[in-house]
Order: sequence, then structure tokens, then C-alpha cells
Amino acid sequence: MKRIAILGSTGSVGTQTLDVIAHDRERYSVEALTAGHNIELLLKQIEQFQPKLVSVHTKEHAEEIKLRTNNNIQVFWGAQGLLAAATDTDADLVVTAVMGSVGLDSTLAAIEAGKHIGLANKETLVSGGHLVTDAAAKYGVRLLPIDSEHSAVFQCLNGEEAKAVKTIILTASGGSFRDKTRDQLKGVTVEQALQHPNWSMGAKITVDSATMANKGLEVIEARWLFGADYDHIRVLLHPESVIHSMVEFIDNSVIAQLGNPDMRIPIQYALTFPGRHITPTAPLDLAKIGNLSFREMDLTRYPCLAMAYESGRLGGTAPTVFNAANETAVSRFLRGEISFLGIEEVIAETLEQQVVVPVRALPDIREADRWARLVASSVQPLSS
Amino acid sequence: MKRIAILGSTGSVGTQTLDVIAHDRERYSVEALTAGHNIELLLKQIEQFQPKLVSVHTKEHAEEIKLRTNNNIQVFWGAQGLLAAATDTDADLVVTAVMGSVGLDSTLAAIEAGKHIGLANKETLVSGGHLVTDAAAKYGVRLLPIDSEHSAVFQCLNGEEAKAVKTIILTASGGSFRDKTRDQLKGVTVEQALQHPNWSMGAKITVDSATMANKGLEVIEARWLFGADYDHIRVLLHPESVIHSMVEFIDNSVIAQLGNPDMRIPIQYALTFPGRHITPTAPLDLAKIGNLSFREMDLTRYPCLAMAYESGRLGGTAPTVFNAANETAVSRFLRGEISFLGIEEVIAETLEQQVVVPVRALPDIREADRWARLVASSVQPLSS
Repeated sequence: MKRIAILGSTGSVGTQTLDVIAHDRERYSVEALTAGHNIELLLKQIEQFQPKLVSVHTKEHAEEIKLRTNNNIQVFWGAQGLLAAATDTDADLVVTAVMGSVGLDSTLAAIEAGKHIGLANKETLVSGGHLVTDAAAKYGVRLLPIDSEHSAVFQCLNGEEAKAVKTIILTASGGSFRDKTRDQLKGVTVEQALQHPNWSMGAKITVDSATMANKGLEVIEARWLFGADYDHIRVLLHPESVIHSMVEFIDNSVIAQLGNPDMRIPIQYALTFPGRHITPTAPLDLAKIGNLSFREMDLTRYPCLAMAYESGRLGGTAPTVFNAANETAVSRFLRGEISFLGIEEVIAETLEQQVVVPVRALPDIREADRWARLVASSVQPLSS
Repeated sequence: MKRIAILGSTGSVGTQTLDVIAHDRERYSVEALTAGHNIELLLKQIEQFQPKLVSVHTKEHAEEIKLRTNNNIQVFWGAQGLLAAATDTDADLVVTAVMGSVGLDSTLAAIEAGKHIGLANKETLVSGGHLVTDAAAKYGVRLLPIDSEHSAVFQCLNGEEAKAVKTIILTASGGSFRDKTRDQLKGVTVEQALQHPNWSMGAKITVDSATMANKGLEVIEARWLFGADYDHIRVLLHPESVIHSMVEFIDNSVIAQLGNPDMRIPIQYALTFPGRHITPTAPLDLAKIGNLSFREMDLTRYPCLAMAYESGRLGGTAPTVFNAANETAVSRFLRGEISFLGIEEVIAETLEQQVVVPVRALPDIREADRWARLVASSVQPLSS
């Protein structure tokens, strides 16, 4: 039996993790769940999965949970509650599916508590790449990627020697605007940006797919997860999103992982690694899909991806600044403050103004993040 | 340094094996080479690779080799010479690239001498599947597949547990007549049959690609190599031959191996397994290829494949009879004696007449093979 804690159990990855667990109930015990404000869903999850510990965003939520559950369950709240869920249980594996920078703190804490990590929080490796990978090595814990691309690479690397890897090839659908020229991007609306062709995801990540900022963050994550340098991480346009990513080896053999666009496959793999188990997902039907297509990635078409590579290569606080500037810019776009092309301008201007410093500890990241959000909030893009 | 013996060094796989070795000369020593009648090429190979032992088809050839080489080399001939090359050297790995049923005898002998096998001879597993896999288990040697499909599956299985495998998916280009209906196959010529769209191969195997008999033999080989039952080995039409084969796991994750149609990749993998090394081959350029397509395999369109599955399921001598009937029928087609569609008729009629017996030892296989060739030589197909 595997003992699991899920940080962010009411979000997309959290609920799908519980769906995987529900389909093979005897294999898992749920040690801890945490949520933000979605108390009703959390209460249902508590009833179904009987965690020993839960944590929520506020004291009020915590009191409500206490009132509506039995006394066997420990209820915490806030940042300390999240850390308790990450560290103070018998969990073997902590799924870190919270959004934003709190994910980094709680992932680091879980690693230091000797927990293997099912990693679904982007900031963790983008901002804290070397802190987190150093800690994972020091405490002997596994970082098991929970997203389709990195799980694909992780699966392709199964049984292979690190020195045999030539190139990590991340596939990208191209997002909702993949068939538009840069000129055609000028007038696009928020509504158009939210139509992702293959995956149903949140607004932020759907916009990030359209700008390719999302793929840029994945490139930075891949650098840390797989110890590859940026010259050996490529992005290939693959509109159908059936090949989730690939590894090219030094003998020019390429191993790819394929599947339906169903997050439960990478989630389950992180839970069952190094084994595999039967799944509630549908099998892939390549004959029905018929065609897979591939195009070279054009970095001038997708400047956010180019800026992500540049930030990754700069290192230090640069990826944190890139990520924070992007988040701020996307929020402003979603609020109608700036245009779609304004997103990349805001990021570019913020990167332009930054002073990159090394990341020695979490405060360096927090300061860079705070600074970048401030700058990105005030930049007035020309194209808005 | 890996010590290699190559049975059949002047054939297609043999010469490409030596090409791989030539590109990384310090990594390998060539212990033995064998050839049939291509003495001139063998003499060049002897000069370049300095084997300690060679064997050729006839005593006359052996005497010529002795005259034209120095005295440090042992020269043998005939069936006994082939067995000496398979067993009487310090080779760690014997590449069995001889054609036909002599491949089975020499592979078994090499296994019993404790040599790992780089397996490029089809008859070995088609006819001797359980003899060979039992011997490999008993003597603790690896069967390393040397062809693109089985090497692909072997690579996809790297690091995975056997119980996690759901389906082995062999891809098939569809051969030279893949876009013709069965009706359109009636008038096709030998010349048309020899135009394979992706791979440049010998006449026999090119015809086998067009009839799908080749894929049928691969299905039977896969059954033995990977211990899968026939219900869990599928064939998928994939005209571009870029995905060389795939494995679907029980979690519905699919791992595929991709590459250019260059036999040196699977050959080198067998030589370097479990590692990988830099290769003389060209990298795969998916963006340049652009599209990969897939279609369901239609067994009524390709009755030779259906008969191969049926023979595999029957077991015993049935796969030997299928293989021998096919070889005989293809020879007759290439000589102009029967039509293209006559091939499947000859096989069907031979299978119809067979009495399947269990394979306890090599003589059972030899007898079935002899009988099938005799019958298949005399069947008069209606369509010729």
C-alpha cells in the first residue's frame, strides 16, 4: 500500500489524482489533503478518502471543516497547515499540485522530510531548480513529474543511462493560435485565447499554451528534472499532442511516449512508479487518429519561448522573473488590460530591467518574484 | 572490448554489422566471420577486421582463403565450419545473420556454448521458438533482436516489468502494393513487387513485405522473444515506417521507438546493449518528414498475415510449414511460375494438407520443412 498526501486536492491535478486512487482503492491510503477555498469539495473528498490530516486556506474554513467532520482528523490552515500536510504524515509520496510559489516551499519541506515528490507545481523547478534537485539528491527522494511532457520523457528514459541521452524533445501543440501569423495575433480576444485544441485546462495555462510560455517553463523544468543543458532540449510542434514527448539517444534511436490527452496517465505513473497498473483511462487508437504531424518550432513566432530559453540560460533569479512577469502579464490580459501580444512585451520589458542574482535560498526567489510582479504590473505595452 | 562473431558476414546484416564495428574499432574485436560464396568480399573483411577464425561454404573456397591469407587464421568450411564459428571462439556475442534453416542449428549451438545472440535469422524463432528460448534461459544468454521491429519493441521494454505489458504493436509499411485492392493485385509483376517504398532489401523479403508474410513471421518471432500471446500482438499499418514498433502498457501509456530506416541502429543496439553509443547513422528529422499515418490492419486484405497468426496459434511444426511454404511460393513467383496471388494459395494449400506435430528437437523441424517445400513446389494455384 502506498501512502499519499495531496497538496491541492480540489484542483485539476488533485481531483484527477483522487480519481486514480478511487479506481484502485486497496493500493493506496490517503494521508493528507489540502485545499484553498473549495470547502464543499474537500468535505466530499474527506468522506470518501478518510485522510488523517487536512489543511485549508483560512482559519474560518478550518473551523467549518472541524464542525462538519469527526474528531479523528487533524485540521490545519494557512502556510503552516500546508507544511504540516507536506511533512507531518506517514506519506511515502507527496503530490504537490498547489498553484504558485507556495508549491516551492512545501515541496522543499516534503523533500527534507524524506518524501518522494509527485511534482505538478511549475514554480518548484522553474524558480528553485537547483535548490530542489540538490535537496532531492541529499535526502534521496525521487522527483516524479506529473505532467504529460515530463512524464513522457521520464518514461522514455526508463532503463537508459544518462550518458546515452542526446536530446530531449518536448512536443508542443502550438496552442489555440497555432495557425495564425504574428500579424493575425493583433486582434485576438481573451475568448479566442481560451480555446485550446487538445487539452481542457485552466485559463492561465491555456493562454500560456498560446504564447508558448508554458512550453518555455517546461523547458526550464526539463533542464532540472533530467540534468540536460538547454542546447539539448528542443521543442517540436506536434498539433495532435499524441506524442507527449521524446528522447533522442546518441545512437539516433528515438523513444517516444504516446497516449490520449488524459492527465490520469502521468498522475498514475508517478503513483505507481517504477511499476505500472491498470488504469481508468481509454486506450490510444492510432488508426482512428490517423495522422500525426510535426513542424519545426519557430522561436520568432513564439518570443515567449525564446525568452524562457534565455532566462534559463541566464540562471539565478532570471527564470523566477520570467515566470512572475508572465503570470502578471497573463492576468492583465485576462482582465482586458493589455492585448495578447502585450503579454510578451510586458515580459520582455521586465526581463530587460532585471538584475540577475544567484539563488542561494528561498528569500532570493521571493524577492525576485515580488520585484518582477511589481514591474510587470506597471509596464505599458505599445500593442495594448 | 566486446568480442563478436558474425555468421553471414557478407550479407546485408553482416556487412552493416561490420560497418558499425568499423566506426568504433577500439570497442570491438572480431573473433569469427563466415560467408557462403562471396570469397572476394570475405577476403577484404579478413584484411580489415583480422578475425581469428573464418568459415565458408565449400572446401574449395576454404582452400582459396588459406592460400590468400596468412597462417594465423583458422579456416573451416561447410556446416561444421559454421558451428565452429558459432562456438569455438572467445566471442561474447554471436550475430546470426545467415539465411535459412542453418541459422537455427548454429544459433542453438552458440547458445549452448554460452554466447549471447544478436539474432537476425528469422527461422531461428519461427521454427525453433521454444527450443531456442528454453536453451537461452538454461544457458543464461540474451537473445538480442536485430531487425527494426523487434529491436524497437526490445528498446520500448527497457526498464519495464513484463507484467506491465498489454499489447505489442508491430508496425507494417504495407509493402509495395499497400494502395492496391485485392482485385488490383491480380495482374502485378515481379518487378512491381520488388519496389519497396521505404527499405532497400533483398527480393525475398521485399515480396514478403508486399504479401505481409514477413510481418506474420515477425509476429511469431515476437511471441517468442517477448513471451506475449498472439492475442496481445497487433499489427498496425504505418506507411512511413518511422515508428518501428510500439508497446502499449496496462496503464494505456504507449512507448514507441522511432528512427530512420537504417539497420545499423538495431544492429548497433544489439552490440552495445544495455548501453548506447554514438553511431554513423543520420538523426531522425520529424519536422522534415512532416506526417506519420496509421491505418488498421485488414487481415482479409493480407491473408498471409492471417495464416501466420493461425500457424503461430497452432504451434508445433505449423510455423515451420508456413515459413517453408512461403519461401517456396515466393521462389516460384520470382521465377515466374506462379502469380503474386498464387503465393497465398500455395501457402494455404500446404497448410491445409499439414499434420501438425510438436517440436521436440531439430529433426522434427527439418522433416516439417522438407515436407512443406515438397508440397508447396507442386501445388498449382488457380490464380496462376
